[in-house]
Amino acid sequence: MNKGRVETFSDGIFAIAITLLVLTIALPNTADYNNLARQLGQRWPSLAAYVVSFLVIGIMWVNHHTIFTHLRAIDRGMFYCNLLLLMTIVFIPYPTEVFGEALRLGPGARTAAIFYSLAMTVNACMWSLLWLNASIGRRLLSPAFPESQRTISTIAFTAGTLAYGASIVVAVFFSPFVCLAFHGALALYYAFDPISRRVGRESAPSVKPGASMGQEPFEQRL
Amino acid sequence: MNKGRVETFSDGIFAIAITLLVLTIALPNTADYNNLARQLGQRWPSLAAYVVSFLVIGIMWVNHHTIFTHLRAIDRGMFYCNLLLLMTIVFIPYPTEVFGEALRLGPGARTAAIFYSLAMTVNACMWSLLWLNASIGRRLLSPAFPESQRTISTIAFTAGTLAYGASIVVAVFFSPFVCLAFHGALALYYAFDPISRRVGRESAPSVKPGASMGQEPFEQRL
Amino acid sequence: MNKGRVETFSDGIFAIAITLLVLTIALPNTADYNNLARQLGQRWPSLAAYVVSFLVIGIMWVNHHTIFTHLRAIDRGMFYCNLLLLMTIVFIPYPTEVFGEALRLGPGARTAAIFYSLAMTVNACMWSLLWLNASIGRRLLSPAFPESQRTISTIAFTAGTLAYGASIVVAVFFSPFVCLAFHGALALYYAFDPISRRVGRESAPSVKPGASMGQEPFEQRL
Amino acid sequence: MNKGRVETFSDGIFAIAITLLVLTIALPNTADYNNLARQLGQRWPSLAAYVVSFLVIGIMWVNHHTIFTHLRAIDRGMFYCNLLLLMTIVFIPYPTEVFGEALRLGPGARTAAIFYSLAMTVNACMWSLLWLNASIGRRLLSPAFPESQRTISTIAFTAGTLAYGASIVVAVFFSPFVCLAFHGALALYYAFDPISRRVGRESAPSVKPGASMGQEPFEQRL
Repeated sequence: MNKGRVETFSDGIFAIAITLLVLTIALPNTADYNNLARQLGQRWPSLAAYVVSFLVIGIMWVNHHTIFTHLRAIDRGMFYCNLLLLMTIVFIPYPTEVFGEALRLGPGARTAAIFYSLAMTVNACMWSLLWLNASIGRRLLSPAFPESQRTISTIAFTAGTLAYGASIVVAVFFSPFVCLAFHGALALYYAFDPISRRVGRESAPSVKPGASMGQEPFEQRL
Repeated sequence: MNKGRVETFSDGIFAIAITLLVLTIALPNTADYNNLARQLGQRWPSLAAYVVSFLVIGIMWVNHHTIFTHLRAIDRGMFYCNLLLLMTIVFIPYPTEVFGEALRLGPGARTAAIFYSLAMTVNACMWSLLWLNASIGRRLLSPAFPESQRTISTIAFTAGTLAYGASIVVAVFFSPFVCLAFHGALALYYAFDPISRRVGRESAPSVKPGASMGQEPFEQRL
Repeated sequence: MNKGRVETFSDGIFAIAITLLVLTIALPNTADYNNLARQLGQRWPSLAAYVVSFLVIGIMWVNHHTIFTHLRAIDRGMFYCNLLLLMTIVFIPYPTEVFGEALRLGPGARTAAIFYSLAMTVNACMWSLLWLNASIGRRLLSPAFPESQRTISTIAFTAGTLAYGASIVVAVFFSPFVCLAFHGALALYYAFDPISRRVGRESAPSVKPGASMGQEPFEQRL
Repeated sequence: MNKGRVETFSDGIFAIAITLLVLTIALPNTADYNNLARQLGQRWPSLAAYVVSFLVIGIMWVNHHTIFTHLRAIDRGMFYCNLLLLMTIVFIPYPTEVFGEALRLGPGARTAAIFYSLAMTVNACMWSLLWLNASIGRRLLSPAFPESQRTISTIAFTAGTLAYGASIVVAVFFSPFVCLAFHGALALYYAFDPISRRVGRESAPSVKPGASMGQEPFEQRL
């Protein structure tokens, strides 16, 4: 399989899934545009869910990009792991819409929080699956990828799955708003994750920053 | 015609069609969010139809990619065959939504199963048309593509059309759920199809990687 | 301006607009799934409108591709002409949906046919504008583009605008179904247009067919 | 981070957001297709809002392209600034739909105008953030970017934020239609902005085409 085309296909799906999120914000009821300001104000939970899911998918895109940079090839098994992962990412707008609506309406908010957390946990499992499929026995890893880093990454993906599993517990025992904030905090944690940043620097020591930037197809940093 | 741009255009359409599938899962009724858990649970057929159609389109993408790898050129006739094929792929979300809804609601489930199977059969016919248009008399085939493989592929595409035709029969005589499972099984069969895998290896060994057939610079084969 | 990026941006918009057409086929009423077969059957005009608009946008993509192949550069004015053209292409799903619905429902069918034809005529005007902006005084044309061909193309674009203008007359004086068929015939005419095919051959004489196919970024046929 | 892939990801999101705008034009009520012409005529404000937002996003795409041309690299901070910017661009169809509907319905029009202007102002702030994050201390600017130009650009982005802020004032004190026209005028101003055109010429002449700044092979400047 052509790694470049699988990346482009995945990038396209990421871009569309993240854009479809705008459709998850329920439109105001046209029969009550006299109270448009109040209607828009009441939709802030949908906007908050939109922001959280947007950050989540955006950060996943970076993650996906990073993993694929470290692969020396894609085989059929890897393609299907990637397809399953994309299936759970494309699904995200659905629980996002349900969560935002439930937070606005009141009833069903706890159920929606659990549903959202569950969808994210399944997604986290798919990330672990993708990573393990590529990295066990260094099956598809690029030779330049350091062995020490492999263990750290495996632990990080497992921890991610547990963190998203914990969000289900948060959804059950705490307020649904706390659960949404928990997901936002997880996204921010991954955005600023010091481990992945240190690793990025450790594993790319001989590349002069800036010099190799912006070349279109050959850019490959390890 | 520029083969690369036709591929990119097709890839974009695949990516969007597969992502629009998330819109086929009917949202819960906002008037009954008190029973959100039950509502979400009742929508499992829509989720199942989403999963099946997602796998189907994902696997078609691989197929499309493989066929185009073996072409030495695209002409106007081939472009229109490809356009007709894409027309049937872009259509898939529609029968998917109808099928998922009908399975949840009960009435119309058999009709919806026949409709879904019919749409897939028309799609399979377009695949055969695309293949025959490219391969008859080796019109557009790359010289590296082995003649023995051409016959096998023609048989495989014909068999695929028959298999999807059989899904109409399954829809008529068996339960609609069996029909959906049949489509899932067909998708899995194509995902792990041993013939296409052997063929891929047979027809590729003598090709110097990177040297032929218009692959992008990153072409990396396992 | 970077010609390659404008092309990619336009290709993306074409791909999305053509895929959104699937959303123009009205879903069956869930309250009446007992009559699903009849409901689906009644939606054939929406399916026909989908097919016609799909072909129209697909053929426009080829056209767009051809024009851009003959340009040596894109400037700001050309970018905005292109943006106006894309605006009328992105709009196509709207009249398509209205036309399909009106043909099914009966009332409003003539109005919808006029509306659809009007949208296509405005689109045809934008094609002429794009062409004239590029070709007057050979402003942006590639030097290899033959002068004789320039006049023929200008006539062809003007004729296209008149043909789409004639579709408004058809919508007013004939049945709306005839109008839809007229649009389908126009699409087929452009798909098999002998003039543009001869021209393509005339202006690309020194390029060996097949040999230069499939190279990704450098493909440029004149 | 790979600058090329961030650009492609952003381009995809721009293309999808601009195409989803067609979904913001409310469809005619199917129960009243007898008055289809009148219904379509009443929707002109939605069409006007569609045109304005389409131009706005299209011009933003040019802007984005220009900024990225002048960057020598993308780091993590820049990626997240870009993600926040994209979040506000993807959001645009929502206020566009609300604005178009409110202008048609009457009540809520002033609120919708303020909401639209507010969304655009937040967007303008994100543009300033993106620019400042790249340009302060020339952190990510390409060495070829002239220092004199840096100050001019910072002033231009600040002025843009103030201009969109002014649109909120227009929405409060003038008619909502005037506010929409004001946004259209701002878009046209940016489309023909003489400063950015002069700047583009000033900062480009000494750059050897093809040699610098990560442009794809086809970079062709007039």
